[in-house]
Amino acid sequence: MSGHLYILGMGPGDPELVTRKAERILRYISFYAYFAKKGEVGHARKIADDMIVSTQQELRFEYPITTEIPHKTNEYKQALSLFYDECADIIEQHLKNNQDVALLCEGDPLFYGSAMYILERLQPSYSTHIVPGISAMSGCWSNAQLPIVKYEQTLTVLPATLSSEELVTKLCYCNAVVIMKIGRNLSKVKQALQEANMYDKAIYIERGTQVQEKIMPLSEFTGIAPYFSLILIAG
Amino acid sequence: MSGHLYILGMGPGDPELVTRKAERILRYISFYAYFAKKGEVGHARKIADDMIVSTQQELRFEYPITTEIPHKTNEYKQALSLFYDECADIIEQHLKNNQDVALLCEGDPLFYGSAMYILERLQPSYSTHIVPGISAMSGCWSNAQLPIVKYEQTLTVLPATLSSEELVTKLCYCNAVVIMKIGRNLSKVKQALQEANMYDKAIYIERGTQVQEKIMPLSEFTGIAPYFSLILIAG
Repeated sequence: MSGHLYILGMGPGDPELVTRKAERILRYISFYAYFAKKGEVGHARKIADDMIVSTQQELRFEYPITTEIPHKTNEYKQALSLFYDECADIIEQHLKNNQDVALLCEGDPLFYGSAMYILERLQPSYSTHIVPGISAMSGCWSNAQLPIVKYEQTLTVLPATLSSEELVTKLCYCNAVVIMKIGRNLSKVKQALQEANMYDKAIYIERGTQVQEKIMPLSEFTGIAPYFSLILIAG
Repeated sequence: MSGHLYILGMGPGDPELVTRKAERILRYISFYAYFAKKGEVGHARKIADDMIVSTQQELRFEYPITTEIPHKTNEYKQALSLFYDECADIIEQHLKNNQDVALLCEGDPLFYGSAMYILERLQPSYSTHIVPGISAMSGCWSNAQLPIVKYEQTLTVLPATLSSEELVTKLCYCNAVVIMKIGRNLSKVKQALQEANMYDKAIYIERGTQVQEKIMPLSEFTGIAPYFSLILIAG
């Protein structure tokens, strides 16, 4: 007899955007786990705040400090891979003891989420369940009241970390577009959108569905974009 | 003083995949509206079943029978446009009487949803709010336990109603792909996936998160695909 692993999508930030299913599982579970950066509460943990009580046991997985290592190197990938091995080992000890564990994830777990690296390590041997979450992009187009795709339009989701050339090439084949992970890539993305003639339609959204949410045309935004920002272009 | 219009995403089918926010609004609202085909309960209405009580008043919007008219003609578009005008008028009467109305929508309202045509008619004059829902595609990749995109991969969502040539051209520029609205387009989509060398990776999902859910490699599926089916190709 082994415990079950529940991977729970906690949505984009507003705790009310958690599903009834994730809430039910979270309220009954004895062990919950989450990822966080050193010194931060952890976005998924923060969203879960009103559903957690002190008798539940917390497994906090702190990302290794990797800012000194360039993110595209093998060294970085190896550091992260070891980290995910360790997290999966800790969860596995509980599963082996017939204890269920819920891994809390911001947004939608299998859409660019770190939870997939835990899933791939434990899926072969344990009973795993995924509860989808509202993605950041969906929270953003809803709060912007922006119909993103209709009829025969297509939607393309691009990470802002792509090269300038890749961005421009891909944008030229797109109808509706979401550009994720803006952060430090803002000026590159702005230029790519100008080259693809999409700049004037672009909407900038920062911390969508969270307390400090900002929504405005990209052309009106000045300043530094945080990690939790994205750009929407309706079809 | 006018009432508020709440457009509520009801998710892909499992009533537990409704958000806490949609549930809260649905339980307090006096008037709820939804679209349905003639003779059917209506997918969004069915999902809401355990949250509705008989003292709430129902506004049922039945799609006009348009199967005789080809869907790409202006005649079809005009029939639908008139229908949405009428629906918006009925909702508007309530808003004018300072009554709040919730419009229930399957999936995520602004992602290929009919609710956007009501929104565009009432948004200029009334207070409107969108509550995002879990999209069908997200419910499907979660239940298939299929990490759909990671790292620098891109996701493209294509409606199966595109022409064969368009499908093949677009597929050739894609990493991860979701093909929506399969239904009668199945054989065209299969052939396009073969031409784009993606057929072997394709997962077929029918009625995702609903009681009769089916998940299998596309190559193993034989039979007729219902409207609620889609194809996933992980990045």
